[in-house]
Amino acid sequence: MNHISIMKGGVTAPKGFQAAAAAAGIKYRGRDDMALVYSQKPCQAAGVFTTNVVKAAPVKWDKKVVDTSPFAQAVVVNSGIANACTGQEGYDCCVKTAKAAGELLHIPEDSVLVASTGVIGAQIPLDRIQEGVKLLAAGLGADEAHGTAAAQAIMTTDTRRKETAVTVEIGGKTVTVGGMCKGSGMIHPNMATMLCFVTTDAAISHEMLQKALSDDVEDTFNMISVDGDTSTNDSVLLLANGMAENAVIEGEGPDYDSFCGALHQVMLKLSQMIAGDGEGCTCLFEVTAVGCASKEQARTLAKSVVTSSLTKAAIFGHDANWGRILCAMGYSGADFDPEKVDIFFESQAGKLKIVENGTSTGYSEETATKILSQEKVTCTMDVKMGDASATAWGCDLTFDYVKINADYRS
Amino acid sequence: MNHISIMKGGVTAPKGFQAAAAAAGIKYRGRDDMALVYSQKPCQAAGVFTTNVVKAAPVKWDKKVVDTSPFAQAVVVNSGIANACTGQEGYDCCVKTAKAAGELLHIPEDSVLVASTGVIGAQIPLDRIQEGVKLLAAGLGADEAHGTAAAQAIMTTDTRRKETAVTVEIGGKTVTVGGMCKGSGMIHPNMATMLCFVTTDAAISHEMLQKALSDDVEDTFNMISVDGDTSTNDSVLLLANGMAENAVIEGEGPDYDSFCGALHQVMLKLSQMIAGDGEGCTCLFEVTAVGCASKEQARTLAKSVVTSSLTKAAIFGHDANWGRILCAMGYSGADFDPEKVDIFFESQAGKLKIVENGTSTGYSEETATKILSQEKVTCTMDVKMGDASATAWGCDLTFDYVKINADYRS
Repeated sequence: MNHISIMKGGVTAPKGFQAAAAAAGIKYRGRDDMALVYSQKPCQAAGVFTTNVVKAAPVKWDKKVVDTSPFAQAVVVNSGIANACTGQEGYDCCVKTAKAAGELLHIPEDSVLVASTGVIGAQIPLDRIQEGVKLLAAGLGADEAHGTAAAQAIMTTDTRRKETAVTVEIGGKTVTVGGMCKGSGMIHPNMATMLCFVTTDAAISHEMLQKALSDDVEDTFNMISVDGDTSTNDSVLLLANGMAENAVIEGEGPDYDSFCGALHQVMLKLSQMIAGDGEGCTCLFEVTAVGCASKEQARTLAKSVVTSSLTKAAIFGHDANWGRILCAMGYSGADFDPEKVDIFFESQAGKLKIVENGTSTGYSEETATKILSQEKVTCTMDVKMGDASATAWGCDLTFDYVKINADYRS
Repeated sequence: MNHISIMKGGVTAPKGFQAAAAAAGIKYRGRDDMALVYSQKPCQAAGVFTTNVVKAAPVKWDKKVVDTSPFAQAVVVNSGIANACTGQEGYDCCVKTAKAAGELLHIPEDSVLVASTGVIGAQIPLDRIQEGVKLLAAGLGADEAHGTAAAQAIMTTDTRRKETAVTVEIGGKTVTVGGMCKGSGMIHPNMATMLCFVTTDAAISHEMLQKALSDDVEDTFNMISVDGDTSTNDSVLLLANGMAENAVIEGEGPDYDSFCGALHQVMLKLSQMIAGDGEGCTCLFEVTAVGCASKEQARTLAKSVVTSSLTKAAIFGHDANWGRILCAMGYSGADFDPEKVDIFFESQAGKLKIVENGTSTGYSEETATKILSQEKVTCTMDVKMGDASATAWGCDLTFDYVKINADYRS
């Protein structure tokens, strides 16, 4: 795999991609709440979507586009209303949004993807969306600032915008992958999470693009959790327009590996950004299970700990309550010997072994509290059964999480 | 099934049972923190225990007593330290506790059950336990006040003691079933929950006693959740001493049904008391799935909604955020058609249909808020697929839950 370089910017970093933001007054006032991502050239499109039985209308529309359209060329996003549980009227709104954008951008309506995030159950005011689409089409730009404005517009309870980009050389050509995402609550992805848009100028077949994305979410977006609630709108969309002019990637090999490496960097960064900006959270909580008999076991253990309300509350309190961690491992469904487990806490303040062979090491609580008082805290559990490992990302459970969600709709 | 009458009291309500409480200074100061339940006559004993891979030492000891001892006659409980993740030393503590109690009560040590609740990972000070056992043996009494003192002593973060009792006539004899339990956090039972002790003077075989208990927990303790965390110490113990002098229940039939009916009343009441006293909670949240294709489907849907952090936070905010309910049903793993679902909210302030066929009924938010502002709130979801139903109990997610758990150990 070739060297991957991190660069500034997000969705507009790859060649040929433009973005725009606009204030359409969908729900929020006095801020941008719609975004458009557009590619000069038609793109191969891949997507992964929520596994929730209740799927928002845009998820249904986008699945159809990704699976049956010859290409995609634009994504229209609104924040404020999720367009979930909205019946035929909600689906019609997606079709009309795509049609309006298609006409303005001179592309087929079935090449326009749509995405929504916000309150479930409310209908989107179609007139405002159509007005918003006009503003977006007129405001497109290919520079970094336009990408950043789009990343800002798709936020709901997020406190920080989330974008990143990398480059990698493939067959003598510089390929760029950029992305943006939003997500802060209702985060417990299963196949995808909330809204994430990744662009690339790589030339790659539809089949390999979808494979790269589907494989990568297993180690990135499917390994984060804020509150255990899997959203109805989760979507990760990936557009590749081929403008890097590398030889088209049509199968596995070094080129595909380099592309996957670059994609992984972007997806990893974006998913961590979501976990670290979980509703009300004060720290990014990284949990790694090592010494596991299988990847599956490692994922199960890491996700169970990162999802435990009691563990998350202890992290908020900077309390090295390892009993809750061992407890959460124990009810995960994975089998292991509790009396062989070692547990470590680590942050920029240091590293400490808290548990050895299932019982306390007699560590200093003072040192532990210092380690746990940082913006990023890592917990590593070693079950000493094999070589497999997996990492999950989440956050602490705080007063503000409750505050935000006790009265989100008003 | 014969008529069941509710009566006052708890574990000492059935004939021949005594209880005691004592302050042993295990962790708490200035309050009772140990309890003893004792039967004048040897009892058949049944138990259900946590499915957590990490099992506390008392769970291991009690499983052995229930499975292999000819009878049981006493239960020694301490609150403050869970005796979980304590290795051989922790198990030895159980054996020595049983031995000390056995000597003082003149019964075999393998007829003494033990139970602990509190912090995971700390060793119990054996000398204090032994001193406590002496106080308990000397303080036994058969009246209601002694049962109540025991129910008080086993509390940790509970704000209310939890006890109840009922009588039922079996074969012309009055059979009494009484119980007490504790539990407030780390509540998401799987096979059992926290600590619950049920006594009865019914005459019943070991086999039928265990069957009655194992079947009943599926609809009671396994259907409550406070925070999704399944404890390492969950235990429900049931002792039957036969002193009601009914003909011994040795198989299914009307007598067994009457006994199960009485047992169910006690278990149901106790499990609801735990859910309604969840850490920091302001209301008991009851969730019923009806119109389901199978009992299994109904349980899955009800538990998913009652466990959803976002739904629980909305209940705290008296917010009829039905989108989160439909969302939690959707990710439960159960299959259903979202566009056929009806959702109702009910409390003593009234009943309201919020959702019909998957979308809002256009209900009054004001009326909904009034209904949601009561001490007990019921949500009913109808998926219109069949006749099966199930109910789960939980509570709202509040600032105080976070507060209690951010700093539980100190």
